[in-house]
Amino acid sequence: MLKDIDTSVKLDKDSYKSEINTLGLKLSEMQRVCKDEGIPVSVIFEGWSAAGKGSRINSLINYLDPRGFEVFTVQKTTEDERLRPYLWRYWQRIPADGRIHIFDRSWYQALMDGFRKKEAVLKDPVYDIRSFEETLTANGAVIIKLFLHVSEKEQKKRLEALATDADTAWRVRKSDVKQNRKYKTFLSRFGKMLDDSDHDAAHWTVVEADDSRFADVKVYRTVLEAMENAVQAKRDKSAAEAAVDADAGTDSGTGAGTGSEIIGNLLTPSENEPSKLESVDLNKSVSREEYNQRLKVAQSDLERFHNAMYKQRLPAAMVFEGWDAAGKGGAIKRTVAPLDPRGYKVAPYGAPNDTERAHHYLWRFWNEVPKAGHMTVFDRSWYGRVMVERVEGFCSTADWKRAFGEINDFEKQLVDSGIVLLKFWLHISPEEQLKRFELRTNTPEKKWKITDEDWRNREKWGQYLEAVDEMLSRTSTPYAPWTVIEANDKLFARIKVIETLHDKLGSALNDRR
Amino acid sequence: MLKDIDTSVKLDKDSYKSEINTLGLKLSEMQRVCKDEGIPVSVIFEGWSAAGKGSRINSLINYLDPRGFEVFTVQKTTEDERLRPYLWRYWQRIPADGRIHIFDRSWYQALMDGFRKKEAVLKDPVYDIRSFEETLTANGAVIIKLFLHVSEKEQKKRLEALATDADTAWRVRKSDVKQNRKYKTFLSRFGKMLDDSDHDAAHWTVVEADDSRFADVKVYRTVLEAMENAVQAKRDKSAAEAAVDADAGTDSGTGAGTGSEIIGNLLTPSENEPSKLESVDLNKSVSREEYNQRLKVAQSDLERFHNAMYKQRLPAAMVFEGWDAAGKGGAIKRTVAPLDPRGYKVAPYGAPNDTERAHHYLWRFWNEVPKAGHMTVFDRSWYGRVMVERVEGFCSTADWKRAFGEINDFEKQLVDSGIVLLKFWLHISPEEQLKRFELRTNTPEKKWKITDEDWRNREKWGQYLEAVDEMLSRTSTPYAPWTVIEANDKLFARIKVIETLHDKLGSALNDRR
Repeated sequence: MLKDIDTSVKLDKDSYKSEINTLGLKLSEMQRVCKDEGIPVSVIFEGWSAAGKGSRINSLINYLDPRGFEVFTVQKTTEDERLRPYLWRYWQRIPADGRIHIFDRSWYQALMDGFRKKEAVLKDPVYDIRSFEETLTANGAVIIKLFLHVSEKEQKKRLEALATDADTAWRVRKSDVKQNRKYKTFLSRFGKMLDDSDHDAAHWTVVEADDSRFADVKVYRTVLEAMENAVQAKRDKSAAEAAVDADAGTDSGTGAGTGSEIIGNLLTPSENEPSKLESVDLNKSVSREEYNQRLKVAQSDLERFHNAMYKQRLPAAMVFEGWDAAGKGGAIKRTVAPLDPRGYKVAPYGAPNDTERAHHYLWRFWNEVPKAGHMTVFDRSWYGRVMVERVEGFCSTADWKRAFGEINDFEKQLVDSGIVLLKFWLHISPEEQLKRFELRTNTPEKKWKITDEDWRNREKWGQYLEAVDEMLSRTSTPYAPWTVIEANDKLFARIKVIETLHDKLGSALNDRR
Repeated sequence: MLKDIDTSVKLDKDSYKSEINTLGLKLSEMQRVCKDEGIPVSVIFEGWSAAGKGSRINSLINYLDPRGFEVFTVQKTTEDERLRPYLWRYWQRIPADGRIHIFDRSWYQALMDGFRKKEAVLKDPVYDIRSFEETLTANGAVIIKLFLHVSEKEQKKRLEALATDADTAWRVRKSDVKQNRKYKTFLSRFGKMLDDSDHDAAHWTVVEADDSRFADVKVYRTVLEAMENAVQAKRDKSAAEAAVDADAGTDSGTGAGTGSEIIGNLLTPSENEPSKLESVDLNKSVSREEYNQRLKVAQSDLERFHNAMYKQRLPAAMVFEGWDAAGKGGAIKRTVAPLDPRGYKVAPYGAPNDTERAHHYLWRFWNEVPKAGHMTVFDRSWYGRVMVERVEGFCSTADWKRAFGEINDFEKQLVDSGIVLLKFWLHISPEEQLKRFELRTNTPEKKWKITDEDWRNREKWGQYLEAVDEMLSRTSTPYAPWTVIEANDKLFARIKVIETLHDKLGSALNDRR
């Protein structure tokens, strides 16, 4: 992509002034439109040392409303960042709907410069970065990737000018000089990187940057076009969805009646395929004595394991999903009981708040990704996308269908970064759920646990069962398999969760040695 | 407080079991009540080394729902924290309404251990910490401060036991041993700290901790009582406020009519006292040529200053407040135009979102406090508390009256930590505002700038004027004075803002040398 580009193209002052003025006014208008449409825009600047990234950013923002954009300089990673997966720091910085984030260097830093010692690394950087960009754009974001390209000669001239001025000499680092000395080597490295990471979700634009006026105009033009296209695409999509909705008629809402009379038709998720969950043996149980004994053994080990994890900087994440009243709370409580509370966090998730809704759906979970040596317990999780959001129609069909792959990629990154990941589905029968709902309703000190929404969800048991079935089969990967917990018997459920965690942590610690 | 306490009190096993069980169930219930009432609870554990903070925390959470609390271990500061005011890291960690945050060490760390090199310091630690606790509790939070106290002998025994076990030896640091060797010195230091920082908003409880059972029960009891009292206080307050509201009758809403006929009565804020803003000379103006010339000079200096600030790690914060359509946006734009966008951030504030509403009103502004070498431009700010929240009745009278002191303390901390703070009130006449509103209404490309709310706010000009007058006089402190900007002439307003910033930064940089 890079080799045959002539960086010496120029623009005269008058054309520059009039072009920038026209483009700038359009850009300013387009910022407002993107804000109204709720489109998040990321503009990333990569390129040669001294190619003028800072100056181009300075120029780009001239026509932007400062209340709507933010500039991020990607520098040395902080300790917080080094202790987490590589892309964590960038997930922290994705723009909310309608905002513009401009990056001086970006997630490509490691691809260009190589990973630094002690830093988190990506196992498959090209794939993971592409998957990161794809999930952002598929969910409505725009990513504009600019590579500022200067010739060997021009770079040399600029570095020398910087070095001879006392005010700017400190800016020239050894690595910059080296880049110029080995220009050809870097040319082919950068070229390969651009080729590898150029894809439909986010293409690279190489900006010929020997002449700053020419570069400015190309940056403006590229950003403007990308924003215009995104607005058009969003409007087309809304129109298409409206048309589909109008066609579809009434396809939602099946439930009728509450309580026991509904159980019969709750059981069949779909006409054709029986649920794999039907074969789960919900009669499994354990006696109180056996439970106490096994719990004691497992908890005492877990306490040791947790300390060892802390010392060895091994992180872990546990995901708890399951039917309402399946006993998630009780299982979580017994799981964390033996652990040092300074080393874990329980992160409960309900409906997203407005800040969360204004970001990609994975954003709020990325925020709680455990750092090295720590553990996060996710009480409900990103699987909401393919359960409640799917069943209740909070996202489009295309959205939740795409989510299986997005989730698998997300979990792959967690596991690749060294996180021990466990996922539990707490399964109960509809009869057992009814019994628990009724018990809650009739017991004053448990009444707060049951809401009208629980009853409404229950009416959609069949739809949820279908969603859960598909979720379990599509997201049980070799690196992050689901464990289905037979939970009609609470004691059995708890001990199975804890022993599963016990075995997984034990072998993860063993592998470390 | 510490000297005459007998740490050797004990509790037998049976009493312990029954007491903890009773207290635990109440605590569990009280967690739910505090959640429902939206009361944020902080429990902080300080004390001697090896006094058992970790074990007490482990015990305390046994009866708590893990989805409602979080444990924070206060460790070495991160770089992000060192670059900001001392209390910033704790503001980041205050609980949202209804949640419990448990701190293993706390903001008292520096008072007990002394400030570390390179760390941000408090100029007046006792005052600043007290003010921090007072503003949290005055706004509805509970802070429970526990000091675990062990005897010299017991501490020695524990440290030796830890040191001889290979699994725990790494936990004993030199400073722990020193604490025991110089027990008496530390006894009087800690005692003084407790005395100094014991006040009505948050009292210390010394927990006799030689016997872990006794300590556990005292911790449970203290936490429980504090939560119960907080719930009672909140209910009393709600009842009192309801009574006052019923008494007050109709005291709000004065405006009638829109447009120019309203200007007459807009001008008088209160019958007795003329507004100090009336004496502001709104005829001040500047010609386009003079503006261009002065702007060029100031901006070119500002660019240099900004670089120097970055190199010298000098942070700055600018607050922009003013009437609707007073020209805040335009002034901000010209101010930041010459600056390197990687070194500043514009933080726009509107109505708080739900996460923000669930925290102390200053929390969302603390989040944007600039780090060393950076600049934050606050487009609207914490002054919303004494303007829109006051006028619209979003907070109680007691709340906004108290806010003047809270804001002065907050700004004192910013300035003490080295931040250059500027505050601008952009002032226009009601006639000028009407002209601008009408221009916006009649100009298609400006129409998005004007909303119904702007017109509604305008009807309350008199009430706002009164609020602004009081704000300017109550929060113009020697360390953070307001600058009133005569803004009927936009060019004059912009140049005055920029030149004021120019002078302030220039002299701050000079002082550094």
